[in-house]
Amino acid sequence: MDELPAAGDVLDAAARIAGHVAVTPVLRSRALDVLAGCTLVFKAEHLQPGGAFKLRGATNAVRALDAEAAARGVVTHSSGNHGAALAIAAQAHGTPCHVVVPDNAVAAKLENMRRHGARLHPCPPTQAAREATCVQVQAETGATLVHPYADARVIAGQGTAALELLQQAGSLDAVVVPVGGGGLAAGTALALAAAAPDCRLVLAEPAGAADTARALAAGVRQTDFVPDTVCDGLRAVLGEPNFRILQAAGAEAAVVDDAATLAAMRLLWQELKQVVEPSSAIALAAVLAQPQRFAGLRVGVVLTGGNVDLEALPWRA
Amino acid sequence: MDELPAAGDVLDAAARIAGHVAVTPVLRSRALDVLAGCTLVFKAEHLQPGGAFKLRGATNAVRALDAEAAARGVVTHSSGNHGAALAIAAQAHGTPCHVVVPDNAVAAKLENMRRHGARLHPCPPTQAAREATCVQVQAETGATLVHPYADARVIAGQGTAALELLQQAGSLDAVVVPVGGGGLAAGTALALAAAAPDCRLVLAEPAGAADTARALAAGVRQTDFVPDTVCDGLRAVLGEPNFRILQAAGAEAAVVDDAATLAAMRLLWQELKQVVEPSSAIALAAVLAQPQRFAGLRVGVVLTGGNVDLEALPWRA
Repeated sequence: MDELPAAGDVLDAAARIAGHVAVTPVLRSRALDVLAGCTLVFKAEHLQPGGAFKLRGATNAVRALDAEAAARGVVTHSSGNHGAALAIAAQAHGTPCHVVVPDNAVAAKLENMRRHGARLHPCPPTQAAREATCVQVQAETGATLVHPYADARVIAGQGTAALELLQQAGSLDAVVVPVGGGGLAAGTALALAAAAPDCRLVLAEPAGAADTARALAAGVRQTDFVPDTVCDGLRAVLGEPNFRILQAAGAEAAVVDDAATLAAMRLLWQELKQVVEPSSAIALAAVLAQPQRFAGLRVGVVLTGGNVDLEALPWRA
Repeated sequence: MDELPAAGDVLDAAARIAGHVAVTPVLRSRALDVLAGCTLVFKAEHLQPGGAFKLRGATNAVRALDAEAAARGVVTHSSGNHGAALAIAAQAHGTPCHVVVPDNAVAAKLENMRRHGARLHPCPPTQAAREATCVQVQAETGATLVHPYADARVIAGQGTAALELLQQAGSLDAVVVPVGGGGLAAGTALALAAAAPDCRLVLAEPAGAADTARALAAGVRQTDFVPDTVCDGLRAVLGEPNFRILQAAGAEAAVVDDAATLAAMRLLWQELKQVVEPSSAIALAAVLAQPQRFAGLRVGVVLTGGNVDLEALPWRA
């Protein structure tokens, strides 16, 4: 990916995916406002089909293909929310979908992709095997690779969540999103450039995978780390285009301990009545951890996903 | 209460409480639609402040008082969602609020009422002591009794949830609500009379407290039973005015086992990502239990409350 997506690409993506993804509601809680000392506006992206914002980027990527490429299909490697989102987006568009999955992946997640018509390609659970299998599927089928986050169309699609939030909530002083590979983070940076250039972008990142915070501080990507966090959606290394976009946007990082994330998750269940996963709750945790940073502001918080094992709630472990 | 509320009272209530209660979102789930074999439109009243639809009736009752009565205050007997809702509604209106509470009530619920400025009056946990204490508080303070459900203003206020649902969702073939004392049920009957006279009203009721089903079948209220159900919000006897309204409206009852309610609760958490209590989930359970009754219809389901003890989830008991 040489050409970085720009602010206008988020506007194009919003037009392209309209009617094919949910307009998710904005939620409020007086109790959480009091606790945080600011006005919190939650964008409920965990209510997208598939239970995550990922449907936005996947839908934009699939629907941007020309007819010939769409007929050949799409391929990705992800056993998580992106794989399911791409399956749903491709099925809705009548496009074949291939997903390369590690052979130790959770059966329920594989079944979810299969249910949406994806053809699964098991491979050994290493990065090298994943990429090799992906290349092989591309060669055999002519399918287009849709990377989970280091992809211009995916980034632009994810940015539509913040765009929609601004339309629903009006002016915001800051938007807080979780950061892993950086698809949502970079997309949000572009959305703010397009629609709210004075709004700050804060990236909530787990202490056990804080490569983005270190990258922004050092001015160079940090790829040498072993992630250790309960936020299973935020373990990836920040993508290269994602890094460049976030650096140019002056995004700020906020590093959060897992204990704070789990406490925030419990608050979101109790007060906002929303089933969100740890990788979502970290954004509220970032606000609660630094009250002086957000005091009195109007703060948008993107709730990114709600895919949780109800039999294994972390506060009961 | 001699004069029954009428359809027009729900329209008046909607105008009176506008801006003082939340406009709650309508939620959808393709997975649940497939499972149910019909189109489900969920009205998220568990997202009201206080975590329940009860704020509608309480706000209507408080704001319908003249200035002199409002200054004297309101009183009720409820250790559950109505007590908290009345405290919130009264505090927002600057009206004193008294709540008679059994001295074995849950501390967290009492603290919640106190936090919203309510003055608590403990009494022994019997119906007789509750009513006597309530009369005593009325005599001492001149406060107006706001009964949890057998009250015209409360019934009309609760009906605004269905009115708003119809405005948001468009035409519906049926609306399903839980029934306990019957405030929401009777209010919904009036709302449908006002805005959707051809829409069926189905009352979801726990098998262990199915007095409404028996009352509608027998044509006379059934007061001689000991409730036994996990739906702690639905243990009350159907109120007298509530019965008359539901009977006149031709409401249908659907009796649901607790096991089916808990299974539906889990589905709402898993698929709709909503933290709802058993007394809410029973409405979805009623639909899933009788697929032929709802096949192919557009069905509104009111999610009534989300106040759950996260440390004691029923499917882990």
